[in-house]
Amino acid sequence: MRDLAVVLASGGLDSCVCVAEAARAADLALLHVNYGQRTQARELRAFQDIADFYRVPAARRLVASLDHLARIGGSSLTDPSREVETGEPAPAAGVPSTYVPFRNAHILCIGASWAEVLGARELYIGAVEEDSSGYPDCRERFFTAFQQAVDEGTRPETRITIRTPLLHLDKAAIVRRGRDLGAPLYLTWSCYVAEDRACGRCESCRLRLRGFAIAGASDPIPYA
Amino acid sequence: MRDLAVVLASGGLDSCVCVAEAARAADLALLHVNYGQRTQARELRAFQDIADFYRVPAARRLVASLDHLARIGGSSLTDPSREVETGEPAPAAGVPSTYVPFRNAHILCIGASWAEVLGARELYIGAVEEDSSGYPDCRERFFTAFQQAVDEGTRPETRITIRTPLLHLDKAAIVRRGRDLGAPLYLTWSCYVAEDRACGRCESCRLRLRGFAIAGASDPIPYA
Repeated sequence: MRDLAVVLASGGLDSCVCVAEAARAADLALLHVNYGQRTQARELRAFQDIADFYRVPAARRLVASLDHLARIGGSSLTDPSREVETGEPAPAAGVPSTYVPFRNAHILCIGASWAEVLGARELYIGAVEEDSSGYPDCRERFFTAFQQAVDEGTRPETRITIRTPLLHLDKAAIVRRGRDLGAPLYLTWSCYVAEDRACGRCESCRLRLRGFAIAGASDPIPYA
Repeated sequence: MRDLAVVLASGGLDSCVCVAEAARAADLALLHVNYGQRTQARELRAFQDIADFYRVPAARRLVASLDHLARIGGSSLTDPSREVETGEPAPAAGVPSTYVPFRNAHILCIGASWAEVLGARELYIGAVEEDSSGYPDCRERFFTAFQQAVDEGTRPETRITIRTPLLHLDKAAIVRRGRDLGAPLYLTWSCYVAEDRACGRCESCRLRLRGFAIAGASDPIPYA
């Protein structure tokens, strides 16, 4: 019998490749989190499409809502009155406006609780340090600290290892890795702004398009 | 101008005394979390009563829902089909059935995100290590690890210190401390089972009643 892995799956490119990584060695339990982001409905559809592709049974799909993240605010991703940056990502400019305060910690908490109850030994998250430079909760130092919190804050017999297989890859390497693993990249959604055709202009679209271009591939999703 | 502190307030005895501690030095922002526990409605009322007592404005009260904790299950506190232990707490027996997997981490996450957006420098939680022996997420080692995760996972300029002023007190000392600080203990609710009159038999009621007895005080809330 294969081990069980909980995988955090936003429905984006990175998380899809992360699911593909986890699927190599483990059975999957997929977690999706709504937190009031603009493209919530589209991301949820991408999540379900990816879960269907990997034949994940309904009992091993969990969709959780963190409505309070939008109420807490502080991010252009959840606050309609703030504009999402459309320029090139500029690491020197510090934390981008799309940073949702401490979001990955919330998502990892849900994953850790679910993994503890399911008896899953691994918790995958498709975070990428380089591309999201400026998001403090995407850095290896954060995941190392959070691993310690999981070790200390769960039952003594619980052993959950946080896996970040994409952490040090760039977008082009992620696209290549996804293709090698047969990941269904055509089912993913990355745009921060639009839900029908990707805008092609927001930070997330730009990173994605550049990744496909450098990998010498064409992006299979529709753009405006 | 006084600093602002986010205080996690379940509505129970410990959290009420924790609010009183925080109120000595800071203005208050109070956070309450529903997670599908049996006595959710009663605890929320206690929270609002305590917030009223301390004249916390509506904009500085946040009620968040973690419905997924009940869906994830694994605890007698959120699963109606499991029985809540009514005997004496037995530390040797390991983690009690009322443990909600990794719950305090979820609650601290919400507090940390809110504190970051509000610019609050302190995050209070009324956890008690001794009385809740067996809850791994109530131990100092967990809070130390979580502090590190907050430091690494928030903006570089964010400084949030987790405060656990009750961590090493026993229930009697907490009752005494609450009386000394003028905390409205009559507004609190601790029972895990009932919402009208406290059952007096669950682990939480027993700990509370014993604390009042040792402190030489009578518990002002109604019991069945």
